[in-house]
Formats: sequence, structure tokens, C-alpha cells
Amino acid sequence: MMVGPTAVPERVLNAMNRKSISHRSKEYCEVHQRVREGLKKIFQTKNEVLVLTSSGTGAMEAAIQNCFSIGDEVVVPVLGTFSEQFALMAEAHQLKVTRVKFELGEAADVDKVMEYVTPDTKGLFVIHNESATGVTNDIQAFGKALEGKDTLLVTDSVSGAGGIEMKMDEWNIDIVLSGSQKALMVPAGLSFIALSDRAWEATKRSNMPKYYFDLNKARQFQEINQTPNTPAVYNMFAVDEALKMIFEEGLENVYKRHKENTNRIIEGIRKLGYDIFPKEEKYASRTLTAVYAPGKAKEIVAGLQEQGIIVNTGLGPIAEDVFRVGVMGYVYNEDVDAFLEALANLS
Amino acid sequence: MMVGPTAVPERVLNAMNRKSISHRSKEYCEVHQRVREGLKKIFQTKNEVLVLTSSGTGAMEAAIQNCFSIGDEVVVPVLGTFSEQFALMAEAHQLKVTRVKFELGEAADVDKVMEYVTPDTKGLFVIHNESATGVTNDIQAFGKALEGKDTLLVTDSVSGAGGIEMKMDEWNIDIVLSGSQKALMVPAGLSFIALSDRAWEATKRSNMPKYYFDLNKARQFQEINQTPNTPAVYNMFAVDEALKMIFEEGLENVYKRHKENTNRIIEGIRKLGYDIFPKEEKYASRTLTAVYAPGKAKEIVAGLQEQGIIVNTGLGPIAEDVFRVGVMGYVYNEDVDAFLEALANLS
Repeated sequence: MMVGPTAVPERVLNAMNRKSISHRSKEYCEVHQRVREGLKKIFQTKNEVLVLTSSGTGAMEAAIQNCFSIGDEVVVPVLGTFSEQFALMAEAHQLKVTRVKFELGEAADVDKVMEYVTPDTKGLFVIHNESATGVTNDIQAFGKALEGKDTLLVTDSVSGAGGIEMKMDEWNIDIVLSGSQKALMVPAGLSFIALSDRAWEATKRSNMPKYYFDLNKARQFQEINQTPNTPAVYNMFAVDEALKMIFEEGLENVYKRHKENTNRIIEGIRKLGYDIFPKEEKYASRTLTAVYAPGKAKEIVAGLQEQGIIVNTGLGPIAEDVFRVGVMGYVYNEDVDAFLEALANLS
Repeated sequence: MMVGPTAVPERVLNAMNRKSISHRSKEYCEVHQRVREGLKKIFQTKNEVLVLTSSGTGAMEAAIQNCFSIGDEVVVPVLGTFSEQFALMAEAHQLKVTRVKFELGEAADVDKVMEYVTPDTKGLFVIHNESATGVTNDIQAFGKALEGKDTLLVTDSVSGAGGIEMKMDEWNIDIVLSGSQKALMVPAGLSFIALSDRAWEATKRSNMPKYYFDLNKARQFQEINQTPNTPAVYNMFAVDEALKMIFEEGLENVYKRHKENTNRIIEGIRKLGYDIFPKEEKYASRTLTAVYAPGKAKEIVAGLQEQGIIVNTGLGPIAEDVFRVGVMGYVYNEDVDAFLEALANLS
């Protein structure tokens, strides 16, 4: 029950146990086409979802390199390791970053963040699911708050997409990026990114140097179900199969399973005398749970590992006090039971 | 017998058929350490070989982003699609590029190229093996020609490393990059890059924006056998196994096999009335053969495919006249026989 890379189902492993094909072959194009259509459903968008051979961080950089220019002003609510990385990367690309800081365990307050958004703000970078602290931001509210403004809403949904609801078009999100190794149950190595019409317009103005992550080129190749450079073909086989599994179960049922499993975890850990780290339960992520166990987190992670349950410690300053248990992807009732039983053995 | 992605051996496929692990676990670090040590032998270097989650093009961009600055003058001998890509990418990053053009099928003439290298030339970008035209450049001679000069020798050995000799340290190469899906017999998705001490020095002066491909950060993480972002863990399992196979056979034996297989292909196609596309046999690549079949290349590729032999057409202007057959990685005597027999059936 890692928070990513997550477990890879046997069906997905089997899909990778096959002969190599050329990424310029008709057979590859058929795989790419299915993945392309499936990812649109996951992102809930009419926009193309482009496939990049990189981790989610690469897709994050693609968003910056393609839709922004040196000196652009952007606002980044910072609430943990991954949102801070968003800010650091924007600075590395010479954007002018305004950080709006929240306490660890808090969600980004929309009204407070919007105080910093001016007519000169080119982008608002919001992490969907801050997996360092187990907090989900209200992306829909950010989308609403930006309606009628020229600011692009850029959303990192690496640990969200495919596990919890994320409606790119309806929620007015301009750029969404995600990765293969979380709720999609696929080995790490691919990332995904979709741009709204407004974001595609912005690519025409961008003066940022780019080549590998040139999204206009990627879009041209996507039209013929290919990629500009050699894609991670075996990971594509894996995504293809994982998407089939997701749609067989039904996306709504997948969301429901993630929510129910997390709710059972929250209830279970509280019974054992722990609490969640997020300050408000309504913002607690439903793809992973950050459990507050002051001073004991590392010991618990080790104790669970001895019983065959792999979870993760917190990141950064909360590494000693928080451990994180994921329900992303291939996690079912019996896994939750096993985790709670193992945790009870340590308590 | 594709020119990449190449065939993946069953042992390598089996190495990927296993449960997921965290990239921060001890188990992952052990895999990473073995891969790290193995790649040093492939590159024949004492330098660290860093592992990036990207195609070879990503590693090419990493070389530019980390070791050069906007406005730097570089020289690029252009002899086909991939060397032209090297030049285009350098231009995308606002380097001042001097192209030294050669006819398709020619190798880069060292003396001619060196006429364009001045004391202001910061980099000479030479492709080791131009897989578009099946030509191998004499990297050793370029290394010798640059001795005592401040120009960095940057070598793309995507379709070379692990298949033909490439001695980074002895040949005085400053930057070598390669990919997983060629002679290493591993699914696409990883690239590799190594920097000499001089190249590491250059990273300190570089003003290029970067984040995902920040090699100094990658080096820091490599010291603890990790990567800054989530690596393609399953591809690492695959590389680990493929390297074992290579060293069991012996690197020198692997080179010998590539050379002998290619020599047999060259002899065989000539018997059938074809010739090689490279103008001089001594520069004809020994990881793939570009066969000259004016006007008939696509027909032959289709005819071979019907007999179960997958080869590739030429790239760009020579697509109708050249087809390419690879011996990279997992290709043995009997594969060469099957190819020649199938080609004979078409003649």
C-alpha cells in the first residue's frame, strides 16, 4: 500500500510479457489510440492527453516550458514537498513566483490564494493532491474563482487522476498533468499532460527553450497515434491494460472504492488511537492517508514492513511524525483489513 | 531485427514480471547500484553514468542544458536525421550552431570538421552511429583531434553503446549519452549519460534553465543509488538483467558477435545484388546495416514482414531507397540466416 509507485496487477504485468514492437508500427498506433481515448476519460476532457516518457516531474516541466515565458508572474500555494517543487521548478525557469504558504496539513484556502492573483498573474499552479501531507485541494473552487480571468490554472494531479474525481473541462482547468505509477497501476516511466484551448494559445507566445518536451510537436504526432521520440512502449502496453481494468470496473466505482477504503482507514486508525495529519477531514486525500504518529512514524513503517505491509514515511520535516498509506489503484477491502490488523499488532 | 526498439530477451521480460517496489527502498538501491556499475563498464569510464527516465533525446537535451549556456558556439557534423536533430536541439536552446554537412552515406571527415573548430567552440557534437544512414563516425579520431583544446566532445551513442566499442575515457570523450532500447535489449524508457571532469566543470558555468534533467542533482542522488524523481523502476529491473546477460557473454564477445553478424549481412546482401548505403565499408555501422535498394525499400520491408522478419525503412529523403536491418542486442547467427533467406525469397 505504497503511495507510489503502487502495486502493479498481474494482468498488467502479463500485458508487458510480450515481444517488442516498433513504435512506428500499425500495432503500436492501435495501442496508442486506445490509451489516448482512455486517458481522455480519466481526465474527463475533450482535449488531447499527451503521453511523455518521463516521470510526473517531466510533465510539470513541460507545462512550464510550453505555456509560460521567462519573467511571467505565477502564484503557487505551497502546502508540502510537491507544491514546493512546483514553485522551485518555476523559479528554475525564471518565472516570478509568489508563494502563498499554508501550514503543513492545511489545504490551500481559495480566498486567501486569490488575494495574490492580479491581472498580471499568468498562471496559478495548484497541486490537486499534496501527497506529502495527504491533503486534497479544491480544484473545482480554484477553477470557478479564475473564471473570466486570463490566469491559467495548472494542476498537478499525479496522485489524483484515476483515483479521485478530476474533471478537467467542467472544472475549468487549463493544464493537467499526471503520472503512470499511481492510481493507474502501471510501472513508473510515463507521464500525461492535457492543455485547454487557452493553454494551447499560450504555447504560441512562450519563449522558453524546449525540445524533448515540445508539446506542439507531441500533439502533431498524437494525431497519427505516435510520439516524436521513442516512447516507453512496454509501459504503453501496461497503461492499455490498466485502463481496460479501470473501465471494466467503471470509473465511478473506482472512485467509490478509493473513497470507501480511505474512510475505513481513517476510522480504523482513529480506533487505534491515531489521527489523520490533515487538519480538516474534508480535505483529507482519498487516494492516500497521512497518519499522525508523533515520533513513531519510522518505527511503525518498519513494524508494518516486517508483517509484509509496505507503507511510506512522511516527507521533509514531518518524516518522524507521519506515515502514509496509499489506496491508489490495485487496493481492495482485504488489503485495508490486513493493514489495520498489522497496525493493531504494533499498538 | 529492428534498429530499435530491439528485441527483448525472455530473461529480461521475466525480470520485469514481479511485484512493484518503492524507488526509495533498499531493494531498489541494490538494483540501481548494480546498473550503475554495469553501465560504467559499457561506457568504459570511471565517470558516473546517470540514469534518466526519458528516451535518448532527453539525455541529449540534458547534455545541452547542463554543460552549455545560451549563445555558446558549437559545431555539429550533420550526416543524417539524428545528427540533424542534435543541431536542431542545440538551436532550440539558443546555441550558435555551425553545421558541417556531409552527403548521406558519408562519415564525418575529421579534418574537414576540425577546420570549423575555433578557440571559441564550446562543444563538438558528434553522433557515434548515425542510424538513419548506417554510418559509424570515428569518435576516437575526434577525441584525439580535440586533445589540448577547450572544446567539449559530446557523443550520442544511442545505437552504439553496448553493441560496438566505445571507450569514453581512453578516447577523450566528455559527454556520452545512450538509451535502453538498442544494444542493451531493454524496453525503451531509460536513457544514460556520463560526464567527464571537464564536462562537470562546465555545468558550473551553464546558465540554461533546467530542472527535470538537472545532472548535478542526479549525481547527488546517484551517490545513494537513487534518482531525484521516480525512476522507471521496471525498466531498471530489465537493465539489471540485460547487463548480467552481456557480462556473462563478455563485452568483447558481444562486440565480436555484432561485427560478425553485420559482416555476414553485408556479404549476404551483396550476393543478392544489393549494396550497403554507406559510401565506405570501413564506416558502415556494425550495429545496423543500411541496405541500398533504390525504389524498392518499402516493398522489401513489407515482403520481409510477411515472412516474419521485421526491419525498418530508411529515414527522411532515403525512405524509398534504403532499408535498415539491425543486429543490436539479442540477434544471433540464426536470425541473420533467417533474414538472408527471407530476402532471397524476394529477389
